[in-house]
Amino acid sequence: MSKSYWIWHPGAFELYHSMLLHNRRTSAKTVNINGKEERRSVYYPPMWRVDGPCHNADLTKTEELQAECEIELFSNTEYCHILVDGKKYPKNTRIVLSKGKHTVELHGYKAESFPAFYIKGNAFNTDRTWLSCNNNNQPGRHAGQSELYKDHCDNVEIFKFKYEKMSPVSIKQENGGVLYDFGCEKFGKIILENAPNGEYLLCLGESVEEALDTAYCQLCVNAQVTKGAFTSVPVAFRYIFVPNLTTPLDIFVNFEFLPLETKASFECDNELINHLWRVCEYTMLLNSREGFFDGIKRDRWVWSGDAYQSYFVNYYLAFDKEIVKRTIRMLRGSEPMTKHINTISDYTFYWLCSIWDYYFYTGDKDFVLDIYPDMLEVLSFVEGRLAPDGMFERKPDDWVFMDWSTFDSNGPICAEQMVLCKAYDSISKCAELCGDTKTSARAKKQAEYIKEQINLLYWNEEKGAFVDCYKSGRNNVTRHANIFAILFDLTSKERKEKIVKNVIYNKEITPITTPYFEFYELDAMCHIGDFEYMTNMLDSYWGGMLRLGATTIWEEFDPTKNGIEHYEMYGGKYEKSLCHAWGASPIYLLGKYALGVYPTKAGYREYDVKPNLMCFKHFCGTVPTPKGTVTVKMDGGRVSVLSQLDGGTLILGGKKYTIEKNKELTVNM
Amino acid sequence: MSKSYWIWHPGAFELYHSMLLHNRRTSAKTVNINGKEERRSVYYPPMWRVDGPCHNADLTKTEELQAECEIELFSNTEYCHILVDGKKYPKNTRIVLSKGKHTVELHGYKAESFPAFYIKGNAFNTDRTWLSCNNNNQPGRHAGQSELYKDHCDNVEIFKFKYEKMSPVSIKQENGGVLYDFGCEKFGKIILENAPNGEYLLCLGESVEEALDTAYCQLCVNAQVTKGAFTSVPVAFRYIFVPNLTTPLDIFVNFEFLPLETKASFECDNELINHLWRVCEYTMLLNSREGFFDGIKRDRWVWSGDAYQSYFVNYYLAFDKEIVKRTIRMLRGSEPMTKHINTISDYTFYWLCSIWDYYFYTGDKDFVLDIYPDMLEVLSFVEGRLAPDGMFERKPDDWVFMDWSTFDSNGPICAEQMVLCKAYDSISKCAELCGDTKTSARAKKQAEYIKEQINLLYWNEEKGAFVDCYKSGRNNVTRHANIFAILFDLTSKERKEKIVKNVIYNKEITPITTPYFEFYELDAMCHIGDFEYMTNMLDSYWGGMLRLGATTIWEEFDPTKNGIEHYEMYGGKYEKSLCHAWGASPIYLLGKYALGVYPTKAGYREYDVKPNLMCFKHFCGTVPTPKGTVTVKMDGGRVSVLSQLDGGTLILGGKKYTIEKNKELTVNM
Repeated sequence: MSKSYWIWHPGAFELYHSMLLHNRRTSAKTVNINGKEERRSVYYPPMWRVDGPCHNADLTKTEELQAECEIELFSNTEYCHILVDGKKYPKNTRIVLSKGKHTVELHGYKAESFPAFYIKGNAFNTDRTWLSCNNNNQPGRHAGQSELYKDHCDNVEIFKFKYEKMSPVSIKQENGGVLYDFGCEKFGKIILENAPNGEYLLCLGESVEEALDTAYCQLCVNAQVTKGAFTSVPVAFRYIFVPNLTTPLDIFVNFEFLPLETKASFECDNELINHLWRVCEYTMLLNSREGFFDGIKRDRWVWSGDAYQSYFVNYYLAFDKEIVKRTIRMLRGSEPMTKHINTISDYTFYWLCSIWDYYFYTGDKDFVLDIYPDMLEVLSFVEGRLAPDGMFERKPDDWVFMDWSTFDSNGPICAEQMVLCKAYDSISKCAELCGDTKTSARAKKQAEYIKEQINLLYWNEEKGAFVDCYKSGRNNVTRHANIFAILFDLTSKERKEKIVKNVIYNKEITPITTPYFEFYELDAMCHIGDFEYMTNMLDSYWGGMLRLGATTIWEEFDPTKNGIEHYEMYGGKYEKSLCHAWGASPIYLLGKYALGVYPTKAGYREYDVKPNLMCFKHFCGTVPTPKGTVTVKMDGGRVSVLSQLDGGTLILGGKKYTIEKNKELTVNM
Repeated sequence: MSKSYWIWHPGAFELYHSMLLHNRRTSAKTVNINGKEERRSVYYPPMWRVDGPCHNADLTKTEELQAECEIELFSNTEYCHILVDGKKYPKNTRIVLSKGKHTVELHGYKAESFPAFYIKGNAFNTDRTWLSCNNNNQPGRHAGQSELYKDHCDNVEIFKFKYEKMSPVSIKQENGGVLYDFGCEKFGKIILENAPNGEYLLCLGESVEEALDTAYCQLCVNAQVTKGAFTSVPVAFRYIFVPNLTTPLDIFVNFEFLPLETKASFECDNELINHLWRVCEYTMLLNSREGFFDGIKRDRWVWSGDAYQSYFVNYYLAFDKEIVKRTIRMLRGSEPMTKHINTISDYTFYWLCSIWDYYFYTGDKDFVLDIYPDMLEVLSFVEGRLAPDGMFERKPDDWVFMDWSTFDSNGPICAEQMVLCKAYDSISKCAELCGDTKTSARAKKQAEYIKEQINLLYWNEEKGAFVDCYKSGRNNVTRHANIFAILFDLTSKERKEKIVKNVIYNKEITPITTPYFEFYELDAMCHIGDFEYMTNMLDSYWGGMLRLGATTIWEEFDPTKNGIEHYEMYGGKYEKSLCHAWGASPIYLLGKYALGVYPTKAGYREYDVKPNLMCFKHFCGTVPTPKGTVTVKMDGGRVSVLSQLDGGTLILGGKKYTIEKNKELTVNM
């Protein structure tokens, strides 16, 4: 068994697949083709610069061999060679290396994608330890590799999804056509079999209404059946409607998914919550692919703010390090950075935050070392756009998103400063980890300065809250900055208490309408021990969607709306995504605060288990870590913890109990 | 007839073809394949970072239509759409635009190459006037276009060469195999026809000796004949040797070339010079392709210093603006600039120089405006690597080439400072042309400062010459800096005279061995009116190669060598290029100084004709300009000039005569 991986110029694999995926979005348009109105699927470009991979690679390694070895180079390109101690060989030839020290270089080029290499043999195994410089003046960086590509027969240009052919759960005549229901959201190629040759319009829908609305559905497939068959590009849908059809066609989906293993669970006495957990799990599954997607129907893009939340959910669901690393690299793109990530300033800041969080959950220092030079480039871009004193200010063309909400933006908004502050904190910690003490100290100082300024400039004593903007004099209060003040510990205990009263529990302050920011609100409330606010919201807000029949979590939910009003967004009747990853936070919230499992030292070297029964009578659940799982059971009288790793402390009623590896700890209350 | 061009994100076409061409180099290696020694063609990677094109494009234009118009979008990608006043259409659909103002956007993506667009119709013709922004924060830049791609059926991914199938001029049995001679250097795919199936090794050579030396020839083709035929990738050679062959195979070459029209001529009473001119012309033809190549056999790369000379030859041969612009863009690559062009500092400086020269010969201000932002980026890179006072100093990993010659490099060499000084002069003039007066003034001042410092630090009064290095105390004199001092007018008349005596005519100063630097030496001597030095050198140096049977000009020539010693270079028996563009300078020298035609205002708005009979009894020749040709005839008693353009002045014996367009001017001496 070879210990080799396919390797490449760092980031090439991620940039290549990112480029492909960001250019797969389409939208259905009504087009006049030679005088006839037709519904057509039209390309929808990404709204930020999408970088392609580096097409050349040079990788090198020096190794001292204890005995004679034989190696053979595999590559995905004809344009390559292996240089052994300065002597060139083509690929697919066996090379014998004598005992002793050798230097091997791999050079390759591929115009259509990126060059990748694999060495088979008992020496010079290809992996991250190879260095790549690619003819830049920069110091060599570690080669890229992926756990998914470890066999010399692998094709790194084809992403390793799994496939399952599925039939609709119901087929019925409707509106002069045929409506197919696949039971819940699917993603994959639509397959037509045994069909009469000709052209068929397939109208897709996440809802019945969307599929049946042939003039306004968001996605359609123009199926040209030849030889009785047709296969589409991969698309997302629950329903397919084929208008003007009397005899149903044989339609299937070749369901395409990343084989992520759920390592977590949560079961309690509340069936709605159990159901919600599984719906969140499925929502995450559909949106976890090459990277973490926003939603599977519409964009299918990697958005940094959305992904930032998926990372947390992932740490409490599949704990797949690979997808987090891929997503971080995809979002970064390549040099030079000329615009914020996804064009959004807060999304750049979350990107910076995500690296420390990744390290803290996984303990994977290698990745931080590998990505740290990119972090510094991002920092340099960010600092080139700050106000002279280092506070955030909006520059032309920067999108300050924060949330789908109305802020007083007559000046930089408070919540943005807070994420910037948190980003500096992440930089400071990562820099320290990488031995860059100068940057670490500078970033720490800057984080402290921003925190100070936030408390000085944005706090309004009369409102007992942080205001959006201190320049306009309007003193507008929204939830966002106040949530971050609690969640990121940016203010005093006294001010936090005021915020809870004056903002969180104040019904006059516009409620959050996206599951996106609801994540932060609930995380903040749990952070200060108010679990009821969270469980109430799971029931009313998330439960509200489930009661309307949701099989996946929506991009946005406003309980006051009715019928197909729920599907409207961005000015389109069905433009809302009904399967949006940012709705999956209950998995994180229940894992971290009900089961109560979280690391206290990087990579779960030490961790706490601080379970809270909340509104439940009993629950049982599992949380994954890099070293195994932690299972927690709780009811009114007893807690038991079974952990596969050392370093744990059970905290219960102010008391601490040491958790021993693989030995159930039971505490009666 | 549509006035449209295929358009793309600026630079995408050039970067795409540059990436392909820089990755086509191979070298023949003896490889052990399963215990058997075989000669194989192995990939040889470029030694600098080669950038791929941008895979996304967005281009936009607003136009006021005087009447209803119909347009149709063509593109090389399925991933595209056209947005008319915010409404999307796919490609290949007819779109009717009403009278009035419209804004059209083109969006596209192509993973394998780059997206390109063509609008057919009587409005919104696609050309340079479209703006491209590609989701960067930078201001929009003009779309890229090429004169070669003006038909909607064109494929921008295939470079538009011409082809001609050619047979060998002789076939003979030799060394147990068969030797084919194609008469002179060819480039193209080798074709085997009516051949018995099997594998043949084709050993290629620019010389007979190389082709016959199966163990050391630089290039080989491993021909796998199936169904009686085989076609190779394009390669360069004059001779093909097939070892172990008794019955000759039918071998052809599909000669591949850029259809450049020679607009110049030179005929005189000296047959060697007439022959030389044609050999130089053919050498240029073979190396003028997607861009200007160094040599057609070995590298087939675009090197900035080599290309810089080809630009000048081109201005006196084909006057093809397109290939100059393509070459300049290819050399530039994309952001960020992390290493010197071709890794060589002087090559970056020549790149900067070339842009003003291009403008001065062509008058094409559009290109200067388009490339100016790139110039500024290069300037910023260069200045980030200069000494604190702005003089050149060598940084680690920078290659200071200057010439294949030995310099005292115990400190920055004088010639390098001189090219830097010239580069600042070019920047200053281009900046002024683009309205950037601040940069213009700063660059001018810097050029003056460097000139001053050169004269202060590097002039050695005792030697009466500039020394390589002023730090070592060795006072080593080479020709290079002294040539530039004359050619770039960097010193006083008095010092120039000393240089001519103490350096140029001083046989103790190592002579130039490359046609590359010989160009500058002869240019400098002609510049100060010493034509005899030049014509002597054409006879002895260039004539020396011709007398050895050269059918194209060599990379380097040392008359003291013998036999196959001439073919040796870089440690390889036949590694020298025998068809090297930098040898074609006689075309430039004879056009500029014998015919005496050169612009005095940009784009030949005004120009001089200052013919010099030199050592000739008579000559007649033509020089191209952007506005037509200038033909000059001269003998001992008479000069006549026939020009297709206004603005010319004939200068003869200190007198000036106005040249009238299309009217022959004859002056008796």
